[in-house]
Amino acid sequence: MPIITLTTDFGTRDPFVGVMKGVILGLAPGVRLVDLTHEISAHDVLQGALALEAAVPFFPAGTIHLAVVDPGVGSARRPLAVAAAGQHFVGPDNGLFSFIFRAGGWSAVRLEAAAYRLPTVSQTFHGRDIFAPAAAHLALGIPLNRFGPPVRDPVTIPWPTAYRQGDRLIGEVIHADRFGNLVTSVRALDLEALGPTSSLVVEVEEKEVGRIVGCYADLLPGGAGAVIGSSGRLEISVREGSAGAATGARRGTKVRVRKQ
Amino acid sequence: MPIITLTTDFGTRDPFVGVMKGVILGLAPGVRLVDLTHEISAHDVLQGALALEAAVPFFPAGTIHLAVVDPGVGSARRPLAVAAAGQHFVGPDNGLFSFIFRAGGWSAVRLEAAAYRLPTVSQTFHGRDIFAPAAAHLALGIPLNRFGPPVRDPVTIPWPTAYRQGDRLIGEVIHADRFGNLVTSVRALDLEALGPTSSLVVEVEEKEVGRIVGCYADLLPGGAGAVIGSSGRLEISVREGSAGAATGARRGTKVRVRKQ
Amino acid sequence: MPIITLTTDFGTRDPFVGVMKGVILGLAPGVRLVDLTHEISAHDVLQGALALEAAVPFFPAGTIHLAVVDPGVGSARRPLAVAAAGQHFVGPDNGLFSFIFRAGGWSAVRLEAAAYRLPTVSQTFHGRDIFAPAAAHLALGIPLNRFGPPVRDPVTIPWPTAYRQGDRLIGEVIHADRFGNLVTSVRALDLEALGPTSSLVVEVEEKEVGRIVGCYADLLPGGAGAVIGSSGRLEISVREGSAGAATGARRGTKVRVRKQ
Repeated sequence: MPIITLTTDFGTRDPFVGVMKGVILGLAPGVRLVDLTHEISAHDVLQGALALEAAVPFFPAGTIHLAVVDPGVGSARRPLAVAAAGQHFVGPDNGLFSFIFRAGGWSAVRLEAAAYRLPTVSQTFHGRDIFAPAAAHLALGIPLNRFGPPVRDPVTIPWPTAYRQGDRLIGEVIHADRFGNLVTSVRALDLEALGPTSSLVVEVEEKEVGRIVGCYADLLPGGAGAVIGSSGRLEISVREGSAGAATGARRGTKVRVRKQ
Repeated sequence: MPIITLTTDFGTRDPFVGVMKGVILGLAPGVRLVDLTHEISAHDVLQGALALEAAVPFFPAGTIHLAVVDPGVGSARRPLAVAAAGQHFVGPDNGLFSFIFRAGGWSAVRLEAAAYRLPTVSQTFHGRDIFAPAAAHLALGIPLNRFGPPVRDPVTIPWPTAYRQGDRLIGEVIHADRFGNLVTSVRALDLEALGPTSSLVVEVEEKEVGRIVGCYADLLPGGAGAVIGSSGRLEISVREGSAGAATGARRGTKVRVRKQ
Repeated sequence: MPIITLTTDFGTRDPFVGVMKGVILGLAPGVRLVDLTHEISAHDVLQGALALEAAVPFFPAGTIHLAVVDPGVGSARRPLAVAAAGQHFVGPDNGLFSFIFRAGGWSAVRLEAAAYRLPTVSQTFHGRDIFAPAAAHLALGIPLNRFGPPVRDPVTIPWPTAYRQGDRLIGEVIHADRFGNLVTSVRALDLEALGPTSSLVVEVEEKEVGRIVGCYADLLPGGAGAVIGSSGRLEISVREGSAGAATGARRGTKVRVRKQ
C-alpha cells in the first residue's frame, strides 16, 4: 500500500488533520501516513509549494501527496488530482503544485466524481470531504481519469528564481527555517556560471554577508556566510545564531552573489 | 487491526506521547496510531471533549479513542473505558466523554484489572501506565467487562448549548481555531426554527457582526460574517483575518442570532 | 518489522522530519515510525539525551532510536550506530547517547559503508543522507558491523546527577516540562538514604519549596511541593500552576533535599 503525505496550514491544535486521517484510513486501511508539515502560514500557497518541492524527491514512486492550503475553499476554485514523475498530488487548484506544472510531464483532472467524495461535502473543509477521500481512492488504485475531466490549464503562481545582472546573480530570500537560516531562490546550478563557489561572496540588500562555505561548521562561531543547503539552494547562515535576525532579511529580500 | 487515536494536553516538546505509543505498540504491534491533537490547553477538559466530539464521527467502527486531559491524575478519580456507537473511549472520568454520555447508548467500566496495566503504575502518568495499555488490550479484542466493574454514574461537565430567547437564539463562543474563526455552541439544527440561514445576522456582545454566508470566500476580503462550519456549528469569521481579534470575543462570550 | 523512533531539534514547520520518513519508508516500507519529539531546543544535545533516556525503557526490544541534534553536521564528528540492551541507536557522536555509554554493555560503529547511505551525501542534512538510511537498514536486519569500523571512545557529555553533602542531597533542575514542572537530577533511588520521602522537604536556591507528596493532586490548589515523577526523578510542582514561574528556577538551578 502506498504512502500518503499530508501538507496543510491547519496547525496541530485543532483535530482537522486527525479527521482527514480518519477518513483516509476508513477507506484505505493499509496506507502509510506521513506528515510533511501542518504549520504552513495560514493561506500561504507559495510556502506550501516550496515545502512540497523540497520533500517530494525523497519519497518513493507511488507516493500520493495530499496538500491543503486553500484560502478559496467553497468558492469556484477547482479541486485537482495530478500525476507526475510516478507520484500523485491532490489539492486545490491555486498554484500549490506550480513546481510540477513548471517541470512538465504531468496530467491533471478535476475531482468531480461523487463516488470518490464523502456523501456530504461541506463548504469549509474540502480537505476532509473531497481531498482525503480522493487520496485514499488513488491509494486503492482507482485510475486518475475516473475522478473527473482533464484539466489542461491549472493555476500557477509566480515562482522565485535567480537571474544574472552583469557579473552578479540576483535572487531573493524565500524562507527562514527554524535555525534562522535564510533559504534563497538561488540554486547550486545557477552559481556555476559565476565560478567556483569558494570564490563567491553573498550580499543581502547591498551589504556583504560572507563567503560560501561547505557546511555550517566551517563558519566561525557567530560568523556569517552561506552554504548550499540540503535541497540544493543557497542558504545564508550564522553559526549558532540566526541569519534572519542578524540581517533583518525576510521573504522577498534581495540577495546578490558575486566574485570576491 | 483497529485505529487508536490520541488526544492529550501533553504538548509535543516532551516525549510523553511517544512513550504512550511505545507502550501501545509493544502490546499491540499492528494497530494504527492517529494523533488528534496534543495541544489541548493544560487541564482544559471541555476543550478536549469538544475536539473529540468533532473528530469521532469521521473514524471507522472499531476505532479506539485514547484521551488524557487529566488534572486529577493520581487522585481518586476513576479511570474509564467506554463503548458507544461501535467505538471505544479510554481516559479519566472527569467529563472528557460528556458528549457520549449525553447522547446515550453507552456502557462503561472502571479500569482495574492489573493484567491490563503496566506492572508498575506511577501516580503521575496514568496515560502511560493505565490508559495506553487499556487501549492496546481493547485493540487486541479483550472484552470491555474484563477490565473492571461497570460504571453507571460517570462524571459529566456542563455542555455549551444554544437556547431561544424571544426571536433570538443565544449561544456562546466555545473555541477559536488557528485561522481566528470563532466556533460557537450554535448548531445548524438550532438555526432552522429562526428561518433560512441567509436571512439571519449574528451579534457578538450586542454588536452586529454580519450575515451567515455559504463559505469563507463569500465574505469580502476583510469582511466579517458567519458560516456553518465543518462540524455543523455556526462559526464567526473574518475573511483573511481573525474574528477573534476583530471582535475581542473569547470562549464564553455570548453570541446571538436574529432575523435581519 | 521493528519500530523506528525519531528525536530531533528540527521543529515541525519545515518538512525535514517528513523527508527522513520518506527515505526510511522507501528503504524499509514495513517499519513503524514513532515521533518522540522534534522540539528539542536547537543544538541542545543534553536535552535530546534526557528525552531519549526517559522514553527508551518503554519501547520493545528491537526498536531503533534515530536521534539528530547535530550542531557539528558536515564537520569531522563521527556518525554512529550503537547497540545496547536489545535496541539500536543512530545519530551523531556528540554525547546524545551518553546515558547509554554510562550504563555499559554497548557496542558502537562508525557509519561509513556507502551502501547504507543515500547516493549523494550533503554537508548539511545527515539526518536524511546518513542516519535515516542507516536506521532503515538496521530495521531490515543488516548487522551492526557491516556499517563500519567499531568505535570504542564515543563522546560523552557531563551528566547531571545528585550528591550527598552532610545531611542534604544536592541536585539540579534539568528540564521544565509543559506544565511548568521542574524535573531534577535527583532520582528516587538517591532519596532512599535520607529517609522516607514523606519526611523530606525540597529547597530551590536555599528557599524551601515544600514537601514530597504522592501525586500532584495531593498538593493544595496553588500549593508547591515535589513528586517522584513518571521517569523516577524528583519533580518540583505547583498544583494548577507553574513551578518554573513560581521559583524562577531554570536548567542548572541548584536543588536541595533534606529532612523536615
